[in-house]
Amino acid sequence: MRTGDLQNAPIGVFDSGLGGLTVAAALAAALPSEDLVYLGDTARVPYGSRSPETILRYFYNNSAFLKNLGVKLIVIACNTVSAQVLDLNRFLDLPVLGVIQPGARAALAASRGGTLAVIGTKATVKSGAYVKAIAALDPGRRVLQAACPLFVPLVEEGWLDHPVTRSVACEYLRFLEGTDVDTVILGCTHYPLLKPLLTEVCQTIRPGVQMLDPAHAVAMEVKLLLESLHLQRSGQGTRRFFVTDAPEQAQAVASRFWGQAVGEELRFEQVDLEVK
Amino acid sequence: MRTGDLQNAPIGVFDSGLGGLTVAAALAAALPSEDLVYLGDTARVPYGSRSPETILRYFYNNSAFLKNLGVKLIVIACNTVSAQVLDLNRFLDLPVLGVIQPGARAALAASRGGTLAVIGTKATVKSGAYVKAIAALDPGRRVLQAACPLFVPLVEEGWLDHPVTRSVACEYLRFLEGTDVDTVILGCTHYPLLKPLLTEVCQTIRPGVQMLDPAHAVAMEVKLLLESLHLQRSGQGTRRFFVTDAPEQAQAVASRFWGQAVGEELRFEQVDLEVK
Repeated sequence: MRTGDLQNAPIGVFDSGLGGLTVAAALAAALPSEDLVYLGDTARVPYGSRSPETILRYFYNNSAFLKNLGVKLIVIACNTVSAQVLDLNRFLDLPVLGVIQPGARAALAASRGGTLAVIGTKATVKSGAYVKAIAALDPGRRVLQAACPLFVPLVEEGWLDHPVTRSVACEYLRFLEGTDVDTVILGCTHYPLLKPLLTEVCQTIRPGVQMLDPAHAVAMEVKLLLESLHLQRSGQGTRRFFVTDAPEQAQAVASRFWGQAVGEELRFEQVDLEVK
Repeated sequence: MRTGDLQNAPIGVFDSGLGGLTVAAALAAALPSEDLVYLGDTARVPYGSRSPETILRYFYNNSAFLKNLGVKLIVIACNTVSAQVLDLNRFLDLPVLGVIQPGARAALAASRGGTLAVIGTKATVKSGAYVKAIAALDPGRRVLQAACPLFVPLVEEGWLDHPVTRSVACEYLRFLEGTDVDTVILGCTHYPLLKPLLTEVCQTIRPGVQMLDPAHAVAMEVKLLLESLHLQRSGQGTRRFFVTDAPEQAQAVASRFWGQAVGEELRFEQVDLEVK
């Protein structure tokens, strides 16, 4: 492909489901000239409790689909997948960017020097990906982790400001008690929707703690990468959204992750990744 | 296949994940001479929020796998799938038995004549399968329904007797207030693990309500079906367990659904249903 064609190629973004739309929305805001292609694997969501091998298999399926659409860059808008493919940045003959390293860098920049904390799915926490990424940047920094598997179903249920969600958050965030944590990384793309509630709960456990959503940092790194590769597009960008389960199901939930941020209605097309 | 071979063929049981082990355990207890083959689609669980088309596709995958193993009968130990394939009983050239109809019959038998209620996944409730099955048996009977999507993740988290689960149950079961419901069908194979808590919560909302787990009724109908087809096996039955994600993940959760009931350790083999 010539550089001109590559400049005009879309950015591919995928997630296990629709949570990655929080990252896609940040990309759309930061890079309005770029064409975006989003893939949500809604027929197999969630990935967070699956084994590393299965997560890698799904990663290959999703990346192959985007590559076939001729994208110039792939953004893994899913912490669980990013955590498994940390070292595979260029294995697909095109740049692949996850959310872990931008998240780790942003957390260190935002921190006042205290301990960092990461909350995420079981698979993300078990991988230790954030811990390793932070250690590579600041070897002395202490990092705590906690898996919060109920946050995703609570967000899917729409209980964003519900007493039950508050109780669950109190239980999951209790590990912050008596620590010197100053920054908590929202290590799952569903969690930004709980940010107001989590911030409030955190203030009762450890006042002054801030919540960091890696989405903005991811968008900034994509921007820098495109500039350094001379692959920026000009004009007004377009967007296409694919899901692996029925589009109607996606429509109902998607606005939670995208609509409020960008104020735009989404249309989903269905694709089957399994019959190859 | 000759009748003798068919008699010795195993019973195939599948579920979206491991909840169906509650049904498999009931089968093992009621039919100790039968060989059982269990398949849990742990790489794509849960099905409860997916579209009917995707659920049907997964049903075909799972059934084809069991059929290739030479089973004489398939038990769909998953309410979500059973609810979608209510009318397809013999489409595979071998008997297929779901949990809905046995559950509906058992609920009517257990009821004291009042309204029936069904709790289950979004897909099960949306299908109206229990409502239709009960209407076919007792056209005048009133049936209420409620989707309880957080119960599955709460069971998976192991919060079987947790204040949060109690709050969620109070919210989901509030629809029983002021009704004359006397029997609640546990329309998801995960729910039997919450039976003590749900019974307790129900007593505060509507005293005297009973919880009905269809698993035993399913086992009894399988027994009758095998007898009527002269396909019972004799001797000591064996069991094989397959999952689509890593076996280690399954091992940890499986005992919740099976171990306590049957007091036996399970060994899982992994199978890939997608690469065909």
